[in-house]
Amino acid sequence: MTTLTPSGTTRGPAAPSDDARVLLRPLAPGHVTIDGGLWARTADVNRAAAIPEGLEQLEKAGNLRNLEIAAGRAEGEAIGPIFADSDVHKWLEAAAWEYAREPDEKLLADQLRITELLAAAQAEDGYLDSVPMLRKVPRYSDLPWSHELYCAGHLFQAAVAQVRGTGRTELLDVAVRLADHLVATFGDGEGQLREVDGHPVVEMGLVELYRETGTRAYLDLASWFVEARGTGIIEGHDKAPTYFSDRVRIREATTVEGHAVRAVYLGAGAADVAVETGDAELLAALDTQYRAMERTKQYVTGGLGSRWEGESFGDPYELPNDRAYAETCAAIGGVQWAWRMLLATGEARYADQIERMLLNGFLAGVSLSGTEYFYVNPLQLRSDAHAEEDRSPAHGRRSWFSCACCPPNIMRTVSSLTGYLATADGASLQLHQYAPGTVTAPLDGGTLRLRVETSYPDEGRVALHVEEAPDGETTLAVRVPAWADGATLAGEPVQAGTYARVTRRFAVGDTVVLDLPLAVRLTSADPRVDAVRGAVAIERGPLVYALEQPDQAEGAVVDDLRIDPAGALSDEFRADLLGGVTVVHAQGAVVPGPDAGATTPYGPATTPPPAPVRDVTLTAIPYYAWANRGPQPMRVWVPTR
Amino acid sequence: MTTLTPSGTTRGPAAPSDDARVLLRPLAPGHVTIDGGLWARTADVNRAAAIPEGLEQLEKAGNLRNLEIAAGRAEGEAIGPIFADSDVHKWLEAAAWEYAREPDEKLLADQLRITELLAAAQAEDGYLDSVPMLRKVPRYSDLPWSHELYCAGHLFQAAVAQVRGTGRTELLDVAVRLADHLVATFGDGEGQLREVDGHPVVEMGLVELYRETGTRAYLDLASWFVEARGTGIIEGHDKAPTYFSDRVRIREATTVEGHAVRAVYLGAGAADVAVETGDAELLAALDTQYRAMERTKQYVTGGLGSRWEGESFGDPYELPNDRAYAETCAAIGGVQWAWRMLLATGEARYADQIERMLLNGFLAGVSLSGTEYFYVNPLQLRSDAHAEEDRSPAHGRRSWFSCACCPPNIMRTVSSLTGYLATADGASLQLHQYAPGTVTAPLDGGTLRLRVETSYPDEGRVALHVEEAPDGETTLAVRVPAWADGATLAGEPVQAGTYARVTRRFAVGDTVVLDLPLAVRLTSADPRVDAVRGAVAIERGPLVYALEQPDQAEGAVVDDLRIDPAGALSDEFRADLLGGVTVVHAQGAVVPGPDAGATTPYGPATTPPPAPVRDVTLTAIPYYAWANRGPQPMRVWVPTR
Repeated sequence: MTTLTPSGTTRGPAAPSDDARVLLRPLAPGHVTIDGGLWARTADVNRAAAIPEGLEQLEKAGNLRNLEIAAGRAEGEAIGPIFADSDVHKWLEAAAWEYAREPDEKLLADQLRITELLAAAQAEDGYLDSVPMLRKVPRYSDLPWSHELYCAGHLFQAAVAQVRGTGRTELLDVAVRLADHLVATFGDGEGQLREVDGHPVVEMGLVELYRETGTRAYLDLASWFVEARGTGIIEGHDKAPTYFSDRVRIREATTVEGHAVRAVYLGAGAADVAVETGDAELLAALDTQYRAMERTKQYVTGGLGSRWEGESFGDPYELPNDRAYAETCAAIGGVQWAWRMLLATGEARYADQIERMLLNGFLAGVSLSGTEYFYVNPLQLRSDAHAEEDRSPAHGRRSWFSCACCPPNIMRTVSSLTGYLATADGASLQLHQYAPGTVTAPLDGGTLRLRVETSYPDEGRVALHVEEAPDGETTLAVRVPAWADGATLAGEPVQAGTYARVTRRFAVGDTVVLDLPLAVRLTSADPRVDAVRGAVAIERGPLVYALEQPDQAEGAVVDDLRIDPAGALSDEFRADLLGGVTVVHAQGAVVPGPDAGATTPYGPATTPPPAPVRDVTLTAIPYYAWANRGPQPMRVWVPTR
Repeated sequence: MTTLTPSGTTRGPAAPSDDARVLLRPLAPGHVTIDGGLWARTADVNRAAAIPEGLEQLEKAGNLRNLEIAAGRAEGEAIGPIFADSDVHKWLEAAAWEYAREPDEKLLADQLRITELLAAAQAEDGYLDSVPMLRKVPRYSDLPWSHELYCAGHLFQAAVAQVRGTGRTELLDVAVRLADHLVATFGDGEGQLREVDGHPVVEMGLVELYRETGTRAYLDLASWFVEARGTGIIEGHDKAPTYFSDRVRIREATTVEGHAVRAVYLGAGAADVAVETGDAELLAALDTQYRAMERTKQYVTGGLGSRWEGESFGDPYELPNDRAYAETCAAIGGVQWAWRMLLATGEARYADQIERMLLNGFLAGVSLSGTEYFYVNPLQLRSDAHAEEDRSPAHGRRSWFSCACCPPNIMRTVSSLTGYLATADGASLQLHQYAPGTVTAPLDGGTLRLRVETSYPDEGRVALHVEEAPDGETTLAVRVPAWADGATLAGEPVQAGTYARVTRRFAVGDTVVLDLPLAVRLTSADPRVDAVRGAVAIERGPLVYALEQPDQAEGAVVDDLRIDPAGALSDEFRADLLGGVTVVHAQGAVVPGPDAGATTPYGPATTPPPAPVRDVTLTAIPYYAWANRGPQPMRVWVPTR
């Protein structure tokens, strides 16, 4: 086995073509390293534990076996959900980005072995999706549910990652054969199918494949899939279209609805199409939809999708904490969409969104060990919560799921995280997220290499040391998050919610310091968010906090805690706790629990509410770190005294 | 066609046998008439419109066609859900009770025609369930989902209703053949199946069939089905047992969980078994479970089941208003369970429960016209609510559903409503619910006939005029609802939440007046009910009220209303409105709607909440009457100023 030099240093995930209508150009993952802090810890366990265990799970759950049967190397029936192949593809993508971070023979060998299996399973004409093949589902006969294009989309993303991350083209060959088959099959031409997949993702995949191969037909097909939505295709299959993001044309939609992952994947794919085709109208529609989502349908954790039923977005302001679905995959899709909107618009709010989703709603989906997952991410778990099935948070985290979309999705996201940190072109470098490491930007005047020194998000100081500098003036733009009132850059006050810029000729040894104030803050919500009436959330910097049972005073049941919104707030770094976290202390009280003798929870409003039993200090941990000590009562929104 | 004299005057639904361990003995529907007010209006449209249209819907939806195919009189494939027969059975039950109220040739002819069809479709050995038969599902191979015993249970109930309501025994013959087949098939004996149905109801049906026929084997089988639950049967089919009420043995359960209709039907069936077998331990367990449900899992409307996902009970105190599922069928099952507990225990709280469920959570399930239904009964509908499917309240009411369990369930409940009003035996008559009409109780000393004169629930005065009196002393017990502080009986103060009693020798011409104070009251909830923090509900007598958009001041969007809990409350009878309702006026304010320019619903808690725009008078209607003017924004729990 020859270890190739990874070519991943040129492009990361979602790399717009040279002609794309974008304001920002991503720095490839290979140009960014993270070597300490929260993200490095997360990446380390992802590499050392999650990815190897993920491969074992794919063996155990039968995903790889399905491919072996399809390749004629084994006998039996397909196991698992119809979209089982997609978990393999996501794992392959994770392995490819991981290899780009640091080459490893086994990581490459596993990829190539599975790639060869996929090639062997592929039909003569390029079709490839093992479960429908084995179950003899007539091709594309049930696209609202068969996930055939969904699996293709994930395969395209994996193939592109393999090229960019390892330099190998074997999976790309499979992808091109499949994509050519799709191009021949779908469209308005004679004999072609006018169908869309019930689960978007093929749009993103096709655009990325176009970016990698230059084959315009892939972009055209992606565009066709985007435009075909909302024209009655899903209803033609006798299915309600809302769930499938097929109720209205995407240009006419003003918000998001239906299945959350489907909706945000479509948003991301449509944004890819918009920037590659230079379609300002489509981009504006997506911006409107994203804003509506952020304003009315997103949890404070960044979580998306409030309903278990249909894993879907709810009505505006319908944001229950206990039954928040907030699927981990929806946070991932939200990041993908926001990233594309950031590249297109250059607006700091999209980078704020990425940070909020990554550090809260997404990161809560994986244990500190990297190998235990949440499928759903509620903002409250009550004392008597009952676990009904493998997604139930009351179970605590699980090592895999019968529908295993989230774990490999987490893996590929963590493996490619460096791709979301910075953008650069011409004479400018933009820093969007902060983590200790290095950023190497090939600018017109030469390389700008920065050493980023920070303990963010525990501390708010981000020092940028120039280790290599280009000729001429360079603009360094750094995101000042919307919550960072009072921030300074190089000692000067800067505006929160924008990019602060320094333009000058940099020299090796220069240091520019961004200082973000991390004072603990209490957050309240628009009164239409009924679920949090009379409650506040605790935030510190980009992190949303939660009260979890083990950190509270003895006998102080989380369900019965109240916070004093006027009380003192303090923070404390606890190296010993949960891998090292900054905890927050607040003043509050315990109110009596329910009266066991009561016959009903309802009574005259004239009866005064029960007086607090005693004052207590509340201790909050970062939301992402909850449920690492078993499932415990938890709440993000704390009722006020 | 000969019209028989209905024998329905002897027994109503759920009539305990003479040996049953009950404290109260139901008066048959034929002994009670309702001839005015809310329930008479409801019964009139049920008879005149709902039942005839229901039959048309059963034709149109294919339920009857399925039976014709099964009977070899038509060709084709089964249409509709696997449990399609059960809707036919429920319609038959409704028609039977309706016939008992007032004989009608067409009503009987339709029953007999369908009964004959069922007999023709029945297999040699007694098995009968058309959809599994036509789809060639191997018998009882998929009992967690096939609903074969569920359909049998509803058939048994319909057969018993036909005997009691019309005196005809044709359906009873079908039922007995089917029941004998079940007795032979299920149990611990050699060659017998140790299986339970995923959806309880056969338990109630078998006990009623035992009561009607005296065949002990039916009671024994019902008891066996009750005891078999919680022993791993559903898990043996690789399904999670919570949803199916199969996680714990019913004697060991301390609350309700899983699918709400399943859970309460099982509770009712187990109560039937407990009273017929004299099983005090089982009854005590059911009482514990019912109390836990009432204390932690019931809406103020009486609604049961807070989750759309799995149509299930949530965790304790998980009672969202917008996503309340509160299926109409769950309210019906709740009434059935409470009625059986009332007969067994004689406790007024169970009659209070029946009233709360009937007048609110149940009655909201049907339009004033009687022919438009809600499947789910939320306590809030927001302005921008989106209708995704036929159950979505944002649609407004629907004339039928693809899963049509609710409409015929409503029909049979309304048709048999007089069966829940009174009980009597020996020298005592107990009145549990109040409606204008007559109650005729055959007591030991002769007949006590009362004329009930009342405008309840619009007014609180209930006058009981003695029209026929027995010899000797008689005890008249009348329920004083728990909310009725200050009630008087015959001018004497009586205790709310109990039965007030008068024991004396009654004479024709005597009048006893019960006076129930109906002052409007505001209700709040245990602080653990997070969904209603900072909000109150409006109640008046047994009715829960709701703010609906059409009744509010111009421009006062329901979503943005606040109530002044210290403000004046008044009521007003409006003959012109919604068939005649008492509305409630309260003082409140409008707060500004959401800021359209906001980027997020979250902000610093230090920002004061928006000040009210203006004071307004709020007008509330009875909850049951909402959505009779199209779907409109509505809320039961109103945030306080």
